[in-house]
Amino acid sequence: MEKLLFGAAYYDEYMPESRIDEDFRLMREAGMNVIRIAESTWSTWEPRDGEFCFDSLHRMLDGASRWGLSVIVGTPTYAIPPWLYRKCPEILPVTHAGQNLYGARQNMDITHPLYRFHAERILRRLLAEVQPYRCVIGFQLDNETKAYDTCSPGAQAAFKTYLKEKFGTVEAMNAAFGFAYWSNSVHDWDDLPDVRGTINGSYAAEYAAFQRTLVTEFLMWQRAIVEEYRRPEQFVTHNFDFDWEPWHCAGLQPEVDQFRAQAALTIAGSDIYYPTADELTGEEISFGCALTRALKKDNFLVLETQAQGPLRNDPYPGQVRLAAFSLVAGGANMVEYWHWHSIHNAIESYWRGVLGHDLRPGRMYAEIASVGRDFARLGGTLCNFRPRSRVAILVSNRSLTGLRNDASFSGFSYNRDALMPLHRALFRSNVAVDLLGEDARDFSAYALVAVPALYCAPEGLIAALKSYVNQGGKLLATCRSFYADENAQIRHAAQPYGMTEVFGMHYEQLTPAREAHVGHYQELLEPHEGTEVLRRYTNPSYAAYACATMHRYGRGQAAYIGADFDDELSIELVAELLRRMGLSLPAERWPLVLKDGEGICYAFNYSASPRAYSPPRECTDLLTGERFAPGESAPLPGWGVRIFQKAQQEAWL
Amino acid sequence: MEKLLFGAAYYDEYMPESRIDEDFRLMREAGMNVIRIAESTWSTWEPRDGEFCFDSLHRMLDGASRWGLSVIVGTPTYAIPPWLYRKCPEILPVTHAGQNLYGARQNMDITHPLYRFHAERILRRLLAEVQPYRCVIGFQLDNETKAYDTCSPGAQAAFKTYLKEKFGTVEAMNAAFGFAYWSNSVHDWDDLPDVRGTINGSYAAEYAAFQRTLVTEFLMWQRAIVEEYRRPEQFVTHNFDFDWEPWHCAGLQPEVDQFRAQAALTIAGSDIYYPTADELTGEEISFGCALTRALKKDNFLVLETQAQGPLRNDPYPGQVRLAAFSLVAGGANMVEYWHWHSIHNAIESYWRGVLGHDLRPGRMYAEIASVGRDFARLGGTLCNFRPRSRVAILVSNRSLTGLRNDASFSGFSYNRDALMPLHRALFRSNVAVDLLGEDARDFSAYALVAVPALYCAPEGLIAALKSYVNQGGKLLATCRSFYADENAQIRHAAQPYGMTEVFGMHYEQLTPAREAHVGHYQELLEPHEGTEVLRRYTNPSYAAYACATMHRYGRGQAAYIGADFDDELSIELVAELLRRMGLSLPAERWPLVLKDGEGICYAFNYSASPRAYSPPRECTDLLTGERFAPGESAPLPGWGVRIFQKAQQEAWL
Amino acid sequence: MEKLLFGAAYYDEYMPESRIDEDFRLMREAGMNVIRIAESTWSTWEPRDGEFCFDSLHRMLDGASRWGLSVIVGTPTYAIPPWLYRKCPEILPVTHAGQNLYGARQNMDITHPLYRFHAERILRRLLAEVQPYRCVIGFQLDNETKAYDTCSPGAQAAFKTYLKEKFGTVEAMNAAFGFAYWSNSVHDWDDLPDVRGTINGSYAAEYAAFQRTLVTEFLMWQRAIVEEYRRPEQFVTHNFDFDWEPWHCAGLQPEVDQFRAQAALTIAGSDIYYPTADELTGEEISFGCALTRALKKDNFLVLETQAQGPLRNDPYPGQVRLAAFSLVAGGANMVEYWHWHSIHNAIESYWRGVLGHDLRPGRMYAEIASVGRDFARLGGTLCNFRPRSRVAILVSNRSLTGLRNDASFSGFSYNRDALMPLHRALFRSNVAVDLLGEDARDFSAYALVAVPALYCAPEGLIAALKSYVNQGGKLLATCRSFYADENAQIRHAAQPYGMTEVFGMHYEQLTPAREAHVGHYQELLEPHEGTEVLRRYTNPSYAAYACATMHRYGRGQAAYIGADFDDELSIELVAELLRRMGLSLPAERWPLVLKDGEGICYAFNYSASPRAYSPPRECTDLLTGERFAPGESAPLPGWGVRIFQKAQQEAWL
Repeated sequence: MEKLLFGAAYYDEYMPESRIDEDFRLMREAGMNVIRIAESTWSTWEPRDGEFCFDSLHRMLDGASRWGLSVIVGTPTYAIPPWLYRKCPEILPVTHAGQNLYGARQNMDITHPLYRFHAERILRRLLAEVQPYRCVIGFQLDNETKAYDTCSPGAQAAFKTYLKEKFGTVEAMNAAFGFAYWSNSVHDWDDLPDVRGTINGSYAAEYAAFQRTLVTEFLMWQRAIVEEYRRPEQFVTHNFDFDWEPWHCAGLQPEVDQFRAQAALTIAGSDIYYPTADELTGEEISFGCALTRALKKDNFLVLETQAQGPLRNDPYPGQVRLAAFSLVAGGANMVEYWHWHSIHNAIESYWRGVLGHDLRPGRMYAEIASVGRDFARLGGTLCNFRPRSRVAILVSNRSLTGLRNDASFSGFSYNRDALMPLHRALFRSNVAVDLLGEDARDFSAYALVAVPALYCAPEGLIAALKSYVNQGGKLLATCRSFYADENAQIRHAAQPYGMTEVFGMHYEQLTPAREAHVGHYQELLEPHEGTEVLRRYTNPSYAAYACATMHRYGRGQAAYIGADFDDELSIELVAELLRRMGLSLPAERWPLVLKDGEGICYAFNYSASPRAYSPPRECTDLLTGERFAPGESAPLPGWGVRIFQKAQQEAWL
Repeated sequence: MEKLLFGAAYYDEYMPESRIDEDFRLMREAGMNVIRIAESTWSTWEPRDGEFCFDSLHRMLDGASRWGLSVIVGTPTYAIPPWLYRKCPEILPVTHAGQNLYGARQNMDITHPLYRFHAERILRRLLAEVQPYRCVIGFQLDNETKAYDTCSPGAQAAFKTYLKEKFGTVEAMNAAFGFAYWSNSVHDWDDLPDVRGTINGSYAAEYAAFQRTLVTEFLMWQRAIVEEYRRPEQFVTHNFDFDWEPWHCAGLQPEVDQFRAQAALTIAGSDIYYPTADELTGEEISFGCALTRALKKDNFLVLETQAQGPLRNDPYPGQVRLAAFSLVAGGANMVEYWHWHSIHNAIESYWRGVLGHDLRPGRMYAEIASVGRDFARLGGTLCNFRPRSRVAILVSNRSLTGLRNDASFSGFSYNRDALMPLHRALFRSNVAVDLLGEDARDFSAYALVAVPALYCAPEGLIAALKSYVNQGGKLLATCRSFYADENAQIRHAAQPYGMTEVFGMHYEQLTPAREAHVGHYQELLEPHEGTEVLRRYTNPSYAAYACATMHRYGRGQAAYIGADFDDELSIELVAELLRRMGLSLPAERWPLVLKDGEGICYAFNYSASPRAYSPPRECTDLLTGERFAPGESAPLPGWGVRIFQKAQQEAWL
Repeated sequence: MEKLLFGAAYYDEYMPESRIDEDFRLMREAGMNVIRIAESTWSTWEPRDGEFCFDSLHRMLDGASRWGLSVIVGTPTYAIPPWLYRKCPEILPVTHAGQNLYGARQNMDITHPLYRFHAERILRRLLAEVQPYRCVIGFQLDNETKAYDTCSPGAQAAFKTYLKEKFGTVEAMNAAFGFAYWSNSVHDWDDLPDVRGTINGSYAAEYAAFQRTLVTEFLMWQRAIVEEYRRPEQFVTHNFDFDWEPWHCAGLQPEVDQFRAQAALTIAGSDIYYPTADELTGEEISFGCALTRALKKDNFLVLETQAQGPLRNDPYPGQVRLAAFSLVAGGANMVEYWHWHSIHNAIESYWRGVLGHDLRPGRMYAEIASVGRDFARLGGTLCNFRPRSRVAILVSNRSLTGLRNDASFSGFSYNRDALMPLHRALFRSNVAVDLLGEDARDFSAYALVAVPALYCAPEGLIAALKSYVNQGGKLLATCRSFYADENAQIRHAAQPYGMTEVFGMHYEQLTPAREAHVGHYQELLEPHEGTEVLRRYTNPSYAAYACATMHRYGRGQAAYIGADFDDELSIELVAELLRRMGLSLPAERWPLVLKDGEGICYAFNYSASPRAYSPPRECTDLLTGERFAPGESAPLPGWGVRIFQKAQQEAWL
């Protein structure tokens, strides 16, 4: 892209009264140049079965044309109208929670032919209506798509086909899933039990994996339809979200394989909602950017991020500005707020937008307009930024699901207790990271690969990681890694399976947390000759065992952390391990956050107190125009940001 | 009335053995003069479909006649017999919680014609049996009636009719409810979705309002039947309850519009259960009395109040006596315990009565008998008492339901976090209050009107309050007030909607609690020129904003508290605001509680430690006969009470 | 028996690969001599309807024969195969939680004729296959059998028959259950309401009692079939479990009347899972042994006990060895681990066995092998041990269920708040106990009988206890005892019902916990003339009332504790009461635990710190061979055990 896109979602049909010109004028004055419209409006545009009314669509597109705003058109398929439910109630599936009722969005069986028929019809009508408009720069397929846990007869029949293809015979499936346990063995494909009742973690995890394939298939299906209508320069994207927490999202999305589903898009996109006020640390923004950037290994769009909402996450003055630049520093080429106005009814009225419920420009509008002015002025320089990363984190949906179904009822969560803490430890030390999906096998671009709780590790991945270390790579693994295969079947050999030589240790004992700083698990590591022990357990009964080790293997090194330590210990331990493995860490640490890339280095102050940063080389702050000599201190106010344009192109970190 | 009624609920049919004469003798010895019988006994009196057996009824009525006890006859329609369920299982509706099973009381669809048919039959039979008895002084319609969340097809069909009448067109409804959101727009009345699945807060709130109309309609229906049988001097009442907490009840009952349902009665009535032991403060009693008194703007009956039960609420010695006089000081002309004996089976055996499970007069009987002796002696003087109130609190079921459906998942509760705290602040300062329903428009009788969290404020109410202040009234509002209209649609203009001139401030920002003393919400108030700021927020990010303001408007004054502060701060702040608005507050504060009325002033000590009160004028304690000169100190033991008969009729507070 | 049995459960069909010879060799090397097989394998042995395949059975039996291992064959009826569910879905009942789905074990209606037909067929086929094998020493009927809360139409029809038999008339039932309450009276047997909806605690408790009879009937039915096949020397047992907590089990099993169900067995058996690590106290082991020993008043088998699992309960080094000897000291003649290997799929993979998931002998194997060597060497001496008990605790399923349905929503639990604390108080003072079922009437063998929360006390039991005290027995009762009859109908006379003379006190007031050290209830005891008061309440409002009393009645004594005190107070109070009633308590107290029996006295150190014990008489430690003179100190390391063989046969405690 040649500039930054900046804007908000806009819903004429939700407004208590139409005020397009007023709103679009305010947008332009705030430096905005794009809106997203139209997802979730099916009942407005097809008020009755086969009757269409696109008045509000044309009002918005005509207005956008008039005011020079670009438009991203979302397809409205994620929320069905009441008449469709009345006509085809079978579209609402049964899930693990029971029979869905009409009312909520995202409650339908996305595999149901009756749903597909009606969805395709509205989709084609919409695309035809939109086609003439030059202001439309791209499409968003559906919205935060999932399989919504459909357990409909149709979905389960498709799952049977999926299993037949994967395993060939019931015997192979029985063996892979351990179905003999509690007499669940299936000796006829027609005996396959309803997934909703199963106690078999492997079967449950496989169904979750199957549901993720439904999302990819659904987006590919929509993409193919959109393809018939779009102009070549129009992009196709989607707003992937992450794991909800519940007022922000971070961590791997359990219900979508985003690394595969991205194939339906021309440019990756996501929703990045982060905690605010005293909880704003920047790590969720950094993580969301890294994950979205990883999907196409390219810059991406942020289709939704918060303005004033949700109410529980209302940001302090200065925080939304800090976040906007953080998104761009993470590789975003668009920052789009959800949403322009606030909602006055229904359910999400607590999720307030750029304007509050009073629809008048206020404190938040002013802050966002200040961002808009800077984006307009600097966008050409700032766009297409990518932070330089020598470290990659490999993320795994299989492991997430496998652990969820075999977590010893401990409450251990892949995202909360493994992935995000490891990401946090690196983020707090200003170690920039890329993310890799679980299909990755080539790690040669990275100085270090980190695998948090890689519970489900197939043989191919184990071999690739082993070879990577052998050839000089550095590996950091955390507890529960390598325990099971891709079917969540636990390995029946020494642990960490296939990697004991690499880590130079093994363990046979796994205990619950029994000392300070440990969250859920302690693996009692038994180091081999020549393995460095960084830390042992403090509980006298386990004092003989290590909890953090490092080992040279081939030309590389491999470190292992055998417990899910709390942040206090984990941040320190990870930094120490990285240092010992020869990675240089910057002296600056959070809350001073640096994002270093080609020609530019961002400095963020993720705290309310003033800080300072001393750029190592000559540079100019693009925001203020100040020039800094090497080593000269640049003060940063609370929640402040500076964008240093380097005199030379060298890396600073 | 010319005396106080004093008694207990009595259930011959629940007793392990009939002992009417023993029990009625003990009642008379305890000064009791009334019993309530017969609600909940359908399966006893109609053991099989169309077969009737009123033996125990006649035993009780004959016994009461013999022992000179008056009788209130409850109608038995709130608990259906097993044969009726077997005959007509469709009487049990589906609710938000699923399909009701037989077993619990209050589980039927009160709109179902089959229920009505059978209910009317037993009702008419019972009334005919009762008609000859002179001891029967009144009737209680049903028992703590609700719609029990019926979502039956019949109820939902009636709701459709209700909506058609209210809105006329689907378009008007769509606009009022914001049904466009998430594609819920309805373009044919037949597409109206099942209320159980809705995510639309306005639709959900309207269904709750509709369910409240069902209660009124049901009680009117019963009243009409009773009317055919009752003698003119026989009263008709009902035992309204309040919000359950769960061992006591206080706050507005969400499922009944008691201000409308009272039309079915000749005298208001209620169940007043309060916390005890170290939690006894008197405020729940005071609130319950004020609410019941408000329904008919008259004295009322307490049809149930606790003796020893529930077990979790067993009172300390002295507390039941304190409570009995508190009820009379709140306007009760009857105090009736639930219940005489305790229950030996089923479910509510933990809710013990005047007699314990051993059915022998014990500690509680003795304490209640001491009340009975005083009531008998002083009843002619004490009855018809009404505390003098210059302050009114306006309560709103629409606001309660609106906030429940749009509370940002914050857990903010109208009753717990707005109404009761405001009532508490006034109660603790000995400011007597009346309550007003949300239909009230004339406030001229009061020096101050307080509106806690009046979230759903229709235009007419806003205009009335504005005019009230303009003409010299004082208004006190707390946070979330005036935010939405009667359909829970949030206003799209400056907040507090329609009242910014009156309060002399507006706000656009609403944040979650981010400092000490705040429960859920902070509105960041921006005072206008000339508005007095009583307090600002302490969080540095919000230090510029006010949280409590006062402003002169027309000839009156209006104060606003923009956060739900804890009691520590709220009690002090409310007292300060009242003082600044020119209301004189008594020097005495809780736990010394005063109830001042015509000719009499009650003094209660709501603590275990001795206190004293100095009456300002000459008076006599009716309980002890002691006479006090003006300013002479009258000691009150722990949990003690004094009833000062004034030598002159003047107000003391 | 002539030796100790020692072994583990073994599941060839669950293993990722067959390794019988390797495993059985390791077992033998660890001193094991028995395995349990075959429960839960229906889908393996009958892969399709009527098709049988016993390959893995024969592999295991042949292997066991080869390696000299004895085998206990479990019947596989507790987990149905998928084809059976597909063929007869009606086998899965509705329960209080709704309709069962296929997947979990123990989800079927054990009364269903279709289930019985298929279960009998697989059972007979299995028994026929097993018959030739000499290594098979016994059978385990089913597995931890319950009625699984079946509320199927068939079960409820049988319940109707049960009620008719028990009560004869609906009127008698109505009176016993207090069905008049809330209009539940039943006047035609066909009106009996669905048990799932009932609010009647007596009806609910009776259904629970009925469900317990189903378990007994089911086990008797299986026993009769097994009887047709077994050789006289083959035993029949069952693995009863206790109340789950959830990671160990202790307390009375609510769903089985084990004192009656034992009639289906030739030798009692149980699963004894205990807390570990810092929570290991030994009391759950001691309790489980006492309960299993009580069933047949004889030694018994432990069919399952933990090795490394569940993960949440992973034991410290030394604890499993301590536990093994504790089981034998409690009367176990077999210690069998669950299970040999760990599970690699499905659900219980966190419940690890003697071998971990790596299937290699590790730390736990070594510890268990050390036990095996001692068992092999000393088994002839150690088997058939029974601790000498002068005290009995009477346990009552009726009371457990009655309290659960009438616990005032207080959360008071029979097991957690009455039975186990009383057992704990005795255990901590080294008072050995026997347990008695609620049908017991002869207490003459004991110096003291303790009745914790004997809420449901029938007249016959009251008479027996009264007579026992009159004739010189000592009785200790705790709060809530004697409150209701066997139908959970509360008595309508002075409390403790029928026993006021015996305890020399009565009470009429029952309050919730209102002072330190009390968990849920305070009975305000009013001692009679001559009754000793050990303690009064400290809350000033209740200072007049006693909470612990002692009284001489006839030739005996009776003590009563009127509140559920915490351990701190309860252990001290129970010890004091026992001492005052003339029982001599040993000087040694927990964590030094003694189990004294004929010829042998065990000493256990239930702590991580070293302790010492000085045997009062000459003896030899069987484990070390050390000889001790009277009074000589024998040191015990942390989690240590000594087995003193006495030179003389006298009792030490």
